[in-house]
Amino acid sequence: MATARTLAAAAAARAFSSTATSGGGAGGVSMVQGASRGIGLEFVRQLLKRSDEGRVVATCRVPDSAVELQKLRQEHAPRLAVLPLDVTDESTIEAAAAAIGETHGSLDLLINATGILSIPNVIHPETTLSKVQKSSLLLAYEVNAVGPILVIKHMWPFLKAGGRSETGRGFSLVANMSARVGSIGDNGLGGWHSYRASKTALNQLTKTVSVELGKKDNIACILLHPGTVDTDLSRPFQKNVPKDKPFTREFSVQKLLSIIDNVKKSDSGKFFAWDGQEIPW
Amino acid sequence: MATARTLAAAAAARAFSSTATSGGGAGGVSMVQGASRGIGLEFVRQLLKRSDEGRVVATCRVPDSAVELQKLRQEHAPRLAVLPLDVTDESTIEAAAAAIGETHGSLDLLINATGILSIPNVIHPETTLSKVQKSSLLLAYEVNAVGPILVIKHMWPFLKAGGRSETGRGFSLVANMSARVGSIGDNGLGGWHSYRASKTALNQLTKTVSVELGKKDNIACILLHPGTVDTDLSRPFQKNVPKDKPFTREFSVQKLLSIIDNVKKSDSGKFFAWDGQEIPW
Repeated sequence: MATARTLAAAAAARAFSSTATSGGGAGGVSMVQGASRGIGLEFVRQLLKRSDEGRVVATCRVPDSAVELQKLRQEHAPRLAVLPLDVTDESTIEAAAAAIGETHGSLDLLINATGILSIPNVIHPETTLSKVQKSSLLLAYEVNAVGPILVIKHMWPFLKAGGRSETGRGFSLVANMSARVGSIGDNGLGGWHSYRASKTALNQLTKTVSVELGKKDNIACILLHPGTVDTDLSRPFQKNVPKDKPFTREFSVQKLLSIIDNVKKSDSGKFFAWDGQEIPW
Repeated sequence: MATARTLAAAAAARAFSSTATSGGGAGGVSMVQGASRGIGLEFVRQLLKRSDEGRVVATCRVPDSAVELQKLRQEHAPRLAVLPLDVTDESTIEAAAAAIGETHGSLDLLINATGILSIPNVIHPETTLSKVQKSSLLLAYEVNAVGPILVIKHMWPFLKAGGRSETGRGFSLVANMSARVGSIGDNGLGGWHSYRASKTALNQLTKTVSVELGKKDNIACILLHPGTVDTDLSRPFQKNVPKDKPFTREFSVQKLLSIIDNVKKSDSGKFFAWDGQEIPW
Protein backbone atom coordinates (compact mmCIF):
# COMPACT_ATOMS: atom_id res chain seq x y z
CA MET A 1 0.00 0.00 0.00
CA ALA A 2 2.80 2.38 0.87
CA THR A 3 4.29 1.89 -2.58
CA ALA A 4 0.97 2.42 -4.31
CA ARG A 5 0.43 5.55 -2.26
CA THR A 6 3.91 6.83 -2.97
CA LEU A 7 3.35 6.33 -6.69
CA ALA A 8 -0.05 8.05 -6.57
CA ALA A 9 1.37 10.98 -4.66
CA ALA A 10 4.32 11.26 -7.02
CA ALA A 11 1.96 11.24 -10.02
CA ALA A 12 -0.15 13.99 -8.45
CA ALA A 13 3.01 15.91 -7.71
CA ARG A 14 4.25 15.63 -11.30
CA ALA A 15 0.92 16.89 -12.65
CA PHE A 16 1.21 19.81 -10.23
CA SER A 17 4.87 20.36 -11.05
CA SER A 18 4.25 20.73 -14.77
CA THR A 19 2.32 23.93 -14.17
CA ALA A 20 3.60 25.22 -10.84
CA THR A 21 6.55 27.54 -10.37
CA SER A 22 9.04 26.09 -7.90
CA GLY A 23 8.90 27.97 -4.63
CA GLY A 24 5.41 29.29 -5.23
CA GLY A 25 6.28 32.88 -6.13
CA ALA A 26 5.22 35.92 -4.12
CA GLY A 27 2.49 34.15 -2.18
CA GLY A 28 4.80 31.31 -1.22
CA VAL A 29 3.69 27.73 -0.75
CA SER A 30 1.04 26.88 1.82
CA MET A 31 0.07 23.39 2.89
CA VAL A 32 -3.34 22.71 4.42
CA GLN A 33 -3.53 19.29 6.04
CA GLY A 34 -7.11 18.10 6.55
CA ALA A 35 -8.64 20.08 3.68
CA SER A 36 -11.62 18.02 2.53
CA ARG A 37 -14.17 20.00 4.54
CA GLY A 38 -14.79 22.35 7.46
CA ILE A 39 -12.11 24.80 8.46
CA GLY A 40 -9.38 23.16 6.38
CA LEU A 41 -11.39 23.48 3.16
CA GLU A 42 -12.17 27.10 3.95
CA PHE A 43 -8.47 27.84 4.50
CA VAL A 44 -7.75 26.49 1.01
CA ARG A 45 -10.54 28.61 -0.47
CA GLN A 46 -9.41 31.83 1.18
CA LEU A 47 -5.70 31.24 0.50
CA LEU A 48 -6.51 30.82 -3.19
CA LYS A 49 -8.73 33.90 -3.19
CA ARG A 50 -6.25 36.29 -1.61
CA SER A 51 -3.33 36.07 -4.02
CA ASP A 52 -2.82 35.31 -7.67
CA GLU A 53 0.56 33.80 -7.11
CA GLY A 54 0.64 31.73 -3.93
CA ARG A 55 0.48 27.95 -4.32
CA VAL A 56 -1.54 25.68 -2.08
CA VAL A 57 -0.98 22.00 -1.33
CA ALA A 58 -4.18 20.58 0.14
CA THR A 59 -4.18 17.11 1.70
CA CYS A 60 -6.98 14.85 2.83
CA ARG A 61 -7.53 11.15 3.40
CA VAL A 62 -9.42 10.36 0.20
CA PRO A 63 -9.02 13.08 -2.44
CA ASP A 64 -11.44 11.39 -4.83
CA SER A 65 -14.28 11.75 -2.29
CA ALA A 66 -13.48 15.37 -1.47
CA VAL A 67 -16.02 16.92 -3.82
CA GLU A 68 -15.65 20.56 -2.78
CA LEU A 69 -11.89 20.35 -2.83
CA GLN A 70 -11.91 18.81 -6.31
CA LYS A 71 -14.12 21.67 -7.51
CA LEU A 72 -11.54 24.13 -6.23
CA ARG A 73 -8.82 22.15 -7.95
CA GLN A 74 -10.64 22.44 -11.26
CA GLU A 75 -10.98 26.20 -10.83
CA HIS A 76 -7.42 26.78 -9.63
CA ALA A 77 -5.54 23.86 -11.17
CA PRO A 78 -2.16 25.49 -11.61
CA ARG A 79 -2.08 26.84 -8.08
CA LEU A 80 -3.71 24.01 -6.14
CA ALA A 81 -2.44 20.47 -5.72
CA VAL A 82 -4.41 17.83 -3.84
CA LEU A 83 -2.49 14.97 -2.22
CA PRO A 84 -3.65 11.99 -0.18
CA LEU A 85 -2.61 12.08 3.48
CA ASP A 86 -4.03 10.18 6.44
CA VAL A 87 -2.45 11.34 9.73
CA THR A 88 -2.94 7.86 11.20
CA ASP A 89 -0.79 6.27 8.47
CA GLU A 90 2.73 7.67 8.55
CA SER A 91 3.58 6.20 5.13
CA THR A 92 1.07 8.59 3.54
CA ILE A 93 2.74 11.53 5.30
CA GLU A 94 6.09 10.38 3.92
CA ALA A 95 4.61 10.02 0.43
CA ALA A 96 3.14 13.54 0.59
CA ALA A 97 6.52 14.85 1.76
CA ALA A 98 8.25 13.12 -1.16
CA ALA A 99 5.76 14.72 -3.56
CA ILE A 100 6.20 18.19 -2.08
CA GLY A 101 9.97 17.75 -2.16
CA GLU A 102 9.79 16.92 -5.83
CA THR A 103 7.59 19.88 -6.78
CA HIS A 104 8.63 22.74 -4.52
CA GLY A 105 11.19 21.76 -1.97
CA SER A 106 9.91 24.44 0.38
CA LEU A 107 6.87 25.37 2.46
CA ASP A 108 6.16 28.81 3.89
CA LEU A 109 3.03 27.92 5.81
CA LEU A 110 1.74 24.61 7.17
CA ILE A 111 -1.77 24.51 8.60
CA ASN A 112 -2.75 21.32 10.44
CA ALA A 113 -6.53 21.35 10.37
CA THR A 114 -7.53 17.73 10.99
CA GLY A 115 -9.45 16.95 14.13
CA ILE A 116 -11.68 14.25 15.52
CA LEU A 117 -14.42 14.84 18.09
CA SER A 118 -17.10 12.28 17.33
CA ILE A 119 -17.78 9.43 14.94
CA PRO A 120 -21.06 7.53 15.42
CA ASN A 121 -20.44 4.20 17.20
CA VAL A 122 -16.71 4.89 17.43
CA ILE A 123 -16.01 7.98 19.53
CA HIS A 124 -18.27 10.45 21.28
CA PRO A 125 -17.48 13.31 23.68
CA GLU A 126 -17.75 11.85 27.17
CA THR A 127 -20.23 13.40 29.59
CA THR A 128 -18.92 11.43 32.58
CA LEU A 129 -15.86 9.45 33.67
CA SER A 130 -17.91 6.28 33.62
CA LYS A 131 -18.20 6.59 29.83
CA VAL A 132 -14.47 7.07 29.26
CA GLN A 133 -13.06 4.31 27.04
CA LYS A 134 -9.42 3.55 26.43
CA SER A 135 -10.07 3.20 22.68
CA SER A 136 -11.51 6.74 22.48
CA LEU A 137 -8.65 8.25 24.46
CA LEU A 138 -6.10 6.61 22.18
CA LEU A 139 -7.91 7.40 18.92
CA ALA A 140 -8.36 11.10 19.74
CA TYR A 141 -4.69 11.29 20.76
CA GLU A 142 -3.51 9.59 17.57
CA VAL A 143 -5.52 11.89 15.27
CA ASN A 144 -5.45 15.21 17.13
CA ALA A 145 -2.01 15.21 18.77
CA VAL A 146 0.27 12.59 17.19
CA GLY A 147 -0.87 13.23 13.61
CA PRO A 148 -0.01 16.94 13.37
CA ILE A 149 3.38 16.36 15.02
CA LEU A 150 4.29 13.64 12.53
CA VAL A 151 3.27 15.97 9.70
CA ILE A 152 5.60 18.68 11.05
CA LYS A 153 8.38 16.08 11.43
CA HIS A 154 8.19 15.09 7.77
CA MET A 155 7.63 18.63 6.42
CA TRP A 156 10.46 20.06 8.53
CA PRO A 157 13.04 20.08 5.69
CA PHE A 158 10.65 22.09 3.48
CA LEU A 159 9.70 24.52 6.26
CA LYS A 160 13.44 25.01 6.83
CA ALA A 161 13.86 25.89 3.15
CA GLY A 162 10.83 28.19 3.16
CA GLY A 163 10.00 31.43 4.92
CA ARG A 164 12.18 33.66 2.80
CA SER A 165 11.40 37.36 2.88
CA GLU A 166 9.65 37.22 -0.53
CA THR A 167 6.63 35.73 1.26
CA GLY A 168 6.44 38.82 3.41
CA ARG A 169 6.79 37.00 6.71
CA GLY A 170 10.52 36.32 6.85
CA PHE A 171 10.06 32.97 8.57
CA SER A 172 8.08 29.79 7.98
CA LEU A 173 4.98 29.22 10.06
CA VAL A 174 3.21 26.17 11.40
CA ALA A 175 -0.35 26.80 12.60
CA ASN A 176 -1.98 23.90 14.47
CA MET A 177 -5.72 23.96 15.05
CA SER A 178 -6.26 23.47 18.77
CA ALA A 179 -9.38 24.30 20.80
CA ARG A 180 -10.17 26.27 23.92
CA VAL A 181 -11.39 23.10 25.64
CA GLY A 182 -7.76 21.95 25.47
CA SER A 183 -6.89 24.66 28.00
CA ILE A 184 -6.45 23.18 31.48
CA GLY A 185 -6.70 26.55 33.20
CA ASP A 186 -9.97 27.29 31.42
CA ASN A 187 -11.53 23.89 32.21
CA GLY A 188 -14.39 24.64 34.57
CA LEU A 189 -16.96 22.26 33.11
CA GLY A 190 -15.16 18.91 32.84
CA GLY A 191 -16.30 16.29 30.34
CA TRP A 192 -15.05 15.65 26.79
CA HIS A 193 -12.09 13.77 28.28
CA SER A 194 -10.64 12.29 25.06
CA TYR A 195 -10.91 15.46 22.99
CA ARG A 196 -9.68 17.78 25.73
CA ALA A 197 -6.65 15.64 26.58
CA SER A 198 -5.68 15.27 22.93
CA LYS A 199 -5.80 19.01 22.30
CA THR A 200 -3.90 19.73 25.54
CA ALA A 201 -1.23 17.27 24.42
CA LEU A 202 -1.16 18.95 21.00
CA ASN A 203 -0.54 22.25 22.79
CA GLN A 204 2.41 20.76 24.70
CA LEU A 205 3.83 19.03 21.62
CA THR A 206 3.57 22.22 19.56
CA LYS A 207 5.26 24.24 22.31
CA THR A 208 7.99 21.58 22.52
CA VAL A 209 8.56 21.59 18.78
CA SER A 210 8.50 25.41 18.65
CA VAL A 211 11.51 25.54 20.98
CA GLU A 212 13.67 23.43 18.67
CA LEU A 213 12.46 24.87 15.35
CA GLY A 214 12.77 28.41 16.62
CA LYS A 215 16.36 27.87 17.76
CA LYS A 216 17.75 25.76 14.93
CA ASP A 217 15.69 27.16 12.08
CA ASN A 218 13.68 30.16 11.05
CA ILE A 219 10.35 28.50 11.83
CA ALA A 220 7.59 29.62 14.21
CA CYS A 221 4.77 27.38 15.50
CA ILE A 222 1.47 28.64 16.86
CA LEU A 223 -1.79 27.15 18.13
CA LEU A 224 -5.17 28.50 17.10
CA HIS A 225 -8.67 28.23 18.56
CA PRO A 226 -11.18 28.83 15.74
CA GLY A 227 -14.18 29.46 18.01
CA THR A 228 -17.25 27.28 17.70
CA VAL A 229 -17.66 27.10 13.96
CA ASP A 230 -20.54 25.63 12.01
CA THR A 231 -18.83 22.48 10.71
CA ASP A 232 -19.56 18.77 10.64
CA LEU A 233 -17.31 18.40 13.70
CA SER A 234 -19.21 20.82 15.92
CA ARG A 235 -22.77 20.53 14.57
CA PRO A 236 -24.00 17.79 16.93
CA PHE A 237 -22.81 19.85 19.93
CA GLN A 238 -24.05 23.34 19.13
CA LYS A 239 -27.17 23.34 21.25
CA ASN A 240 -25.38 25.05 24.14
CA VAL A 241 -23.85 27.76 22.01
CA PRO A 242 -25.30 31.28 22.50
CA LYS A 243 -27.54 32.72 19.79
CA ASP A 244 -24.88 34.85 18.11
CA LYS A 245 -22.75 31.75 17.53
CA PRO A 246 -21.60 29.46 15.96
CA PHE A 247 -19.37 31.35 13.61
CA THR A 248 -19.49 30.72 9.90
CA ARG A 249 -16.39 29.04 8.52
CA GLU A 250 -15.78 32.13 6.41
CA PHE A 251 -15.68 34.43 9.45
CA SER A 252 -13.53 32.14 11.57
CA VAL A 253 -10.96 31.53 8.85
CA GLN A 254 -10.79 35.26 8.01
CA LYS A 255 -9.94 35.90 11.66
CA LEU A 256 -7.41 33.06 11.82
CA LEU A 257 -5.70 34.20 8.60
CA SER A 258 -5.45 37.67 10.07
CA ILE A 259 -3.55 36.17 13.02
CA ILE A 260 -1.38 34.12 10.65
CA ASP A 261 -0.59 37.24 8.61
CA ASN A 262 0.36 39.36 11.59
CA VAL A 263 2.14 36.86 13.79
CA LYS A 264 5.70 37.68 14.85
CA LYS A 265 8.53 35.21 15.25
CA SER A 266 8.45 35.99 18.99
CA ASP A 267 4.86 34.71 19.11
CA SER A 268 6.12 31.19 18.45
CA GLY A 269 4.81 28.67 20.96
CA LYS A 270 1.70 30.72 21.79
CA PHE A 271 -1.99 29.76 21.74
CA PHE A 272 -4.35 32.33 20.19
CA ALA A 273 -8.14 32.47 19.99
CA TRP A 274 -9.82 33.62 16.77
CA ASP A 275 -9.91 37.19 18.13
CA GLY A 276 -6.16 37.29 18.74
CA GLN A 277 -6.42 36.89 22.52
CA GLU A 278 -3.94 34.50 24.09
CA ILE A 279 -5.50 31.48 25.78
CA PRO A 280 -3.99 30.23 29.06
CA TRP A 281 -2.54 26.72 29.06
CA MET B 1 -6.13 -14.58 30.98
CA ALA B 2 -8.68 -12.19 32.41
CA THR B 3 -10.36 -15.04 34.25
CA ALA B 4 -7.06 -16.33 35.64
CA ARG B 5 -6.19 -12.83 36.78
CA THR B 6 -9.59 -12.28 38.34
CA LEU B 7 -9.24 -15.52 40.27
CA ALA B 8 -5.71 -14.64 41.42
CA ALA B 9 -6.84 -11.20 42.54
CA ALA B 10 -9.85 -12.64 44.35
CA ALA B 11 -7.61 -15.17 46.13
CA ALA B 12 -5.23 -12.39 47.21
CA ALA B 13 -8.21 -10.37 48.36
CA ARG B 14 -9.61 -13.22 50.43
CA ALA B 15 -6.24 -13.75 52.14
CA PHE B 16 -6.20 -10.03 52.91
CA SER B 17 -9.81 -10.01 54.00
CA SER B 18 -9.29 -12.76 56.57
CA THR B 19 -7.03 -10.48 58.61
CA ALA B 20 -8.04 -6.98 57.62
CA THR B 21 -10.71 -4.91 59.27
CA SER B 22 -13.25 -3.70 56.74
CA GLY B 23 -12.84 0.00 56.12
CA GLY B 24 -9.26 0.05 57.34
CA GLY B 25 -9.84 1.67 60.74
CA ALA B 26 -8.48 5.04 61.80
CA GLY B 27 -5.82 5.25 59.09
CA GLY B 28 -8.32 4.44 56.38
CA VAL B 29 -7.54 2.47 53.25
CA SER B 30 -4.87 3.71 50.85
CA MET B 31 -4.17 2.27 47.43
CA VAL B 32 -0.80 2.74 45.78
CA GLN B 33 -0.83 1.85 42.10
CA GLY B 34 2.65 1.18 40.68
CA ALA B 35 4.22 0.07 43.95
CA SER B 36 6.94 -2.37 42.95
CA ARG B 37 9.76 0.19 43.11
CA GLY B 38 10.70 3.86 43.09
CA ILE B 39 8.29 6.40 44.50
CA GLY B 40 5.34 3.99 44.64
CA LEU B 41 7.24 1.50 46.82
CA GLU B 42 8.37 4.31 49.11
CA PHE B 43 4.78 5.53 49.49
CA VAL B 44 3.80 2.05 50.66
CA ARG B 45 6.71 1.94 53.12
CA GLN B 46 5.94 5.33 54.64
CA LEU B 47 2.18 4.77 54.77
CA LEU B 48 2.79 1.57 56.72
CA LYS B 49 5.29 3.27 59.04
CA ARG B 50 3.13 6.21 60.00
CA SER B 51 0.09 4.48 61.48
CA ASP B 52 -0.64 1.19 63.21
CA GLU B 53 -4.13 1.01 61.83
CA GLY B 54 -4.24 2.22 58.23
CA ARG B 55 -4.47 -0.45 55.52
CA VAL B 56 -2.58 -0.30 52.25
CA VAL B 57 -3.44 -1.96 48.95
CA ALA B 58 -0.32 -1.99 46.77
CA THR B 59 -0.56 -2.93 43.11
CA CYS B 60 2.07 -3.71 40.50
CA ARG B 61 2.30 -5.61 37.25
CA VAL B 62 3.96 -8.76 38.56
CA PRO B 63 3.70 -9.08 42.35
CA ASP B 64 5.86 -12.21 42.42
CA SER B 65 8.82 -10.27 40.99
CA ALA B 66 8.39 -7.30 43.32
CA VAL B 67 10.97 -8.42 45.90
CA GLU B 68 10.96 -5.31 48.09
CA LEU B 69 7.19 -5.13 48.12
CA GLN B 70 6.94 -8.79 49.10
CA LYS B 71 9.36 -8.15 51.99
CA LEU B 72 7.05 -5.40 53.21
CA ARG B 73 4.11 -7.72 52.86
CA GLN B 74 5.79 -10.30 55.09
CA GLU B 75 6.50 -7.65 57.74
CA HIS B 76 3.06 -6.02 57.59
CA ALA B 77 0.86 -8.88 56.37
CA PRO B 78 -2.39 -7.90 58.08
CA ARG B 79 -2.16 -4.30 56.92
CA LEU B 80 -0.74 -4.70 53.40
CA ALA B 81 -2.30 -6.45 50.43
CA VAL B 82 -0.51 -6.81 47.13
CA LEU B 83 -2.61 -7.16 43.98
CA PRO B 84 -1.63 -7.52 40.32
CA LEU B 85 -2.51 -4.52 38.14
CA ASP B 86 -1.14 -3.53 34.75
CA VAL B 87 -2.47 -0.12 33.65
CA THR B 88 -2.25 -1.18 29.99
CA ASP B 89 -4.63 -4.11 30.58
CA GLU B 90 -8.02 -2.85 31.77
CA SER B 91 -9.15 -6.36 32.80
CA THR B 92 -6.48 -6.33 35.54
CA ILE B 93 -7.81 -2.99 36.80
CA GLU B 94 -11.30 -4.48 36.92
CA ALA B 95 -10.00 -7.55 38.77
CA ALA B 96 -8.21 -5.37 41.32
CA ALA B 97 -11.41 -3.34 41.78
CA ALA B 98 -13.39 -6.54 42.35
CA ALA B 99 -10.87 -7.63 44.96
CA ILE B 100 -10.94 -4.28 46.76
CA GLY B 101 -14.72 -4.27 46.64
CA GLU B 102 -14.76 -7.69 48.30
CA THR B 103 -12.35 -6.75 51.08
CA HIS B 104 -13.04 -3.14 51.96
CA GLY B 105 -15.58 -1.53 49.71
CA SER B 106 -13.95 1.84 50.26
CA LEU B 107 -10.78 3.79 49.54
CA ASP B 108 -9.71 6.97 51.28
CA LEU B 109 -6.59 7.62 49.25
CA LEU B 110 -5.55 6.52 45.76
CA ILE B 111 -2.01 7.25 44.63
CA ASN B 112 -1.25 6.61 40.95
CA ALA B 113 2.52 6.24 40.86
CA THR B 114 3.20 4.40 37.61
CA GLY B 115 5.17 6.18 34.95
CA ILE B 116 7.21 5.37 31.87
CA LEU B 117 10.10 7.49 30.61
CA SER B 118 12.50 5.05 28.99
CA ILE B 119 12.82 1.36 28.23
CA PRO B 120 15.93 0.26 26.30
CA ASN B 121 15.09 -0.37 22.64
CA VAL B 122 11.44 0.58 23.19
CA ILE B 123 11.12 4.19 24.30
CA HIS B 124 13.66 6.88 25.03
CA PRO B 125 13.25 10.60 25.79
CA GLU B 126 13.54 12.37 22.45
CA THR B 127 16.27 14.99 22.04
CA THR B 128 14.90 16.21 18.69
CA LEU B 129 11.72 16.12 16.60
CA SER B 130 13.48 13.91 14.07
CA LYS B 131 13.62 11.14 16.68
CA VAL B 132 9.93 11.33 17.57
CA GLN B 133 8.20 8.01 16.87
CA LYS B 134 4.47 7.39 16.83
CA SER B 135 4.92 4.19 18.86
CA SER B 136 6.66 6.10 21.68
CA LEU B 137 4.04 8.85 21.74
CA LEU B 138 1.26 6.29 22.01
CA LEU B 139 2.99 4.08 24.59
CA ALA B 140 3.80 6.97 26.92
CA TYR B 141 0.21 8.22 26.60
CA GLU B 142 -1.24 4.78 27.32
CA VAL B 143 0.85 4.24 30.46
CA ASN B 144 1.17 7.77 31.89
CA ALA B 145 -2.18 9.35 30.99
CA VAL B 146 -4.76 6.71 30.06
CA GLY B 147 -3.71 4.21 32.75
CA PRO B 148 -4.24 6.40 35.83
CA ILE B 149 -7.60 7.63 34.50
CA LEU B 150 -8.87 4.08 33.97
CA VAL B 151 -7.75 3.24 37.52
CA ILE B 152 -9.76 6.19 38.87
CA LYS B 153 -12.74 5.12 36.74
CA HIS B 154 -12.81 1.63 38.27
CA MET B 155 -11.97 2.74 41.83
CA TRP B 156 -14.57 5.53 41.76
CA PRO B 157 -17.24 3.55 43.67
CA PHE B 158 -14.80 2.88 46.51
CA LEU B 159 -13.51 6.45 46.62
CA LYS B 160 -17.16 7.53 46.81
CA ALA B 161 -17.65 5.26 49.81
CA GLY B 162 -14.42 6.45 51.47
CA GLY B 163 -13.25 9.77 52.86
CA ARG B 164 -15.31 9.67 56.03
CA SER B 165 -14.20 11.98 58.79
CA GLU B 166 -12.63 9.11 60.77
CA THR B 167 -9.67 9.27 58.40
CA GLY B 168 -9.09 12.87 59.42
CA ARG B 169 -9.49 14.31 55.94
CA GLY B 170 -13.23 14.33 55.48
CA PHE B 171 -13.01 13.54 51.76
CA SER B 172 -11.37 10.93 49.56
CA LEU B 173 -8.24 11.93 47.69
CA VAL B 174 -6.70 10.91 44.37
CA ALA B 175 -3.04 11.92 43.96
CA ASN B 176 -1.61 11.43 40.47
CA MET B 177 2.16 11.57 39.97
CA SER B 178 2.79 14.12 37.24
CA ALA B 179 6.06 15.93 36.47
CA ARG B 180 7.16 19.51 36.02
CA VAL B 181 8.16 18.76 32.42
CA GLY B 182 4.44 18.26 31.81
CA SER B 183 3.92 21.98 32.36
CA ILE B 184 3.49 23.80 29.04
CA GLY B 185 4.12 27.21 30.55
CA ASP B 186 7.37 25.99 32.12
CA ASN B 187 8.65 24.36 28.92
CA GLY B 188 11.67 26.40 27.91
CA LEU B 189 13.96 23.55 26.85
CA GLY B 190 11.87 21.42 24.49
CA GLY B 191 12.64 17.73 23.96
CA TRP B 192 11.18 14.67 25.76
CA HIS B 193 8.12 14.94 23.50
CA SER B 194 6.41 11.66 24.43
CA TYR B 195 6.88 11.98 28.17
CA ARG B 196 5.99 15.68 28.30
CA ALA B 197 2.81 15.29 26.25
CA SER B 198 1.65 12.28 28.28
CA LYS B 199 2.07 14.13 31.58
CA THR B 200 0.39 17.26 30.18
CA ALA B 201 -2.53 15.10 29.10
CA LEU B 202 -2.60 13.48 32.54
CA ASN B 203 -2.84 16.98 34.03
CA GLN B 204 -5.82 17.81 31.79
CA LEU B 205 -7.53 14.46 32.45
CA THR B 206 -7.05 14.82 36.21
CA LYS B 207 -8.44 18.36 36.11
CA THR B 208 -11.40 17.13 34.04
CA VAL B 209 -12.12 14.27 36.43
CA SER B 210 -11.71 16.54 39.47
CA VAL B 211 -14.60 18.71 38.24
CA GLU B 212 -17.05 15.79 38.14
CA LEU B 213 -15.85 14.00 41.29
CA GLY B 214 -15.77 17.22 43.25
CA LYS B 215 -19.34 18.09 42.29
CA LYS B 216 -21.04 14.70 42.49
CA ASP B 217 -19.00 13.18 45.28
CA ASN B 218 -16.77 14.06 48.16
CA ILE B 219 -13.57 13.33 46.24
CA ALA B 220 -10.62 15.63 45.49
CA CYS B 221 -7.97 14.98 42.82
CA ILE B 222 -4.51 16.53 42.80
CA LEU B 223 -1.35 16.29 40.70
CA LEU B 224 2.09 16.03 42.25
CA HIS B 225 5.61 16.68 40.97
CA PRO B 226 8.04 14.65 43.10
CA GLY B 227 11.17 16.54 42.02
CA THR B 228 14.03 14.67 40.39
CA VAL B 229 14.26 11.61 42.59
CA ASP B 230 16.91 8.91 42.56
CA THR B 231 14.86 6.10 40.99
CA ASP B 232 15.25 3.65 38.12
CA LEU B 233 13.12 6.02 36.02
CA SER B 234 15.32 9.08 36.42
CA ARG B 235 18.78 7.51 36.91
CA PRO B 236 19.87 7.55 33.26
CA PHE B 237 18.99 11.27 33.02
CA GLN B 238 20.49 12.69 36.21
CA LYS B 239 23.70 14.07 34.75
CA ASN B 240 22.22 17.55 34.36
CA VAL B 241 20.84 17.68 37.88
CA PRO B 242 22.65 20.09 40.27
CA LYS B 243 24.85 18.63 43.03
CA ASP B 244 22.31 18.88 45.85
CA LYS B 245 19.88 16.77 43.83
CA PRO B 246 18.49 14.26 43.02
CA PHE B 247 16.32 13.80 46.05
CA THR B 248 16.23 10.51 47.87
CA ARG B 249 12.94 8.69 47.55
CA GLU B 250 12.51 9.03 51.33
CA PHE B 251 12.78 12.83 51.20
CA SER B 252 10.51 13.25 48.17
CA VAL B 253 7.77 10.99 49.54
CA GLN B 254 7.92 12.66 52.97
CA LYS B 255 7.29 15.97 51.21
CA LEU B 256 4.51 14.56 49.01
CA LEU B 257 2.78 12.92 52.00
CA SER B 258 2.91 16.25 53.79
CA ILE B 259 1.00 17.77 50.86
CA ILE B 260 -1.44 14.85 50.85
CA ASP B 261 -2.02 15.28 54.61
CA ASN B 262 -2.67 18.99 54.41
CA VAL B 263 -4.56 19.31 51.16
CA LYS B 264 -7.99 20.97 51.29
CA LYS B 265 -11.01 20.01 49.22
CA SER B 266 -10.70 23.39 47.50
CA ASP B 267 -7.24 22.36 46.25
CA SER B 268 -8.84 19.78 43.99
CA GLY B 269 -7.65 20.05 40.39
CA LYS B 270 -4.35 21.70 41.35
CA PHE B 271 -0.77 20.72 40.46
CA PHE B 272 1.75 20.88 43.32
CA ALA B 273 5.52 20.48 43.38
CA TRP B 274 7.18 18.53 46.25
CA ASP B 275 7.63 21.82 48.16
CA GLY B 276 3.94 22.69 48.00
CA GLN B 277 4.32 25.37 45.32
CA GLU B 278 1.71 25.32 42.58
CA ILE B 279 3.06 24.62 39.11
CA PRO B 280 1.58 26.52 36.14
CA TRP B 281 -0.17 24.44 33.49
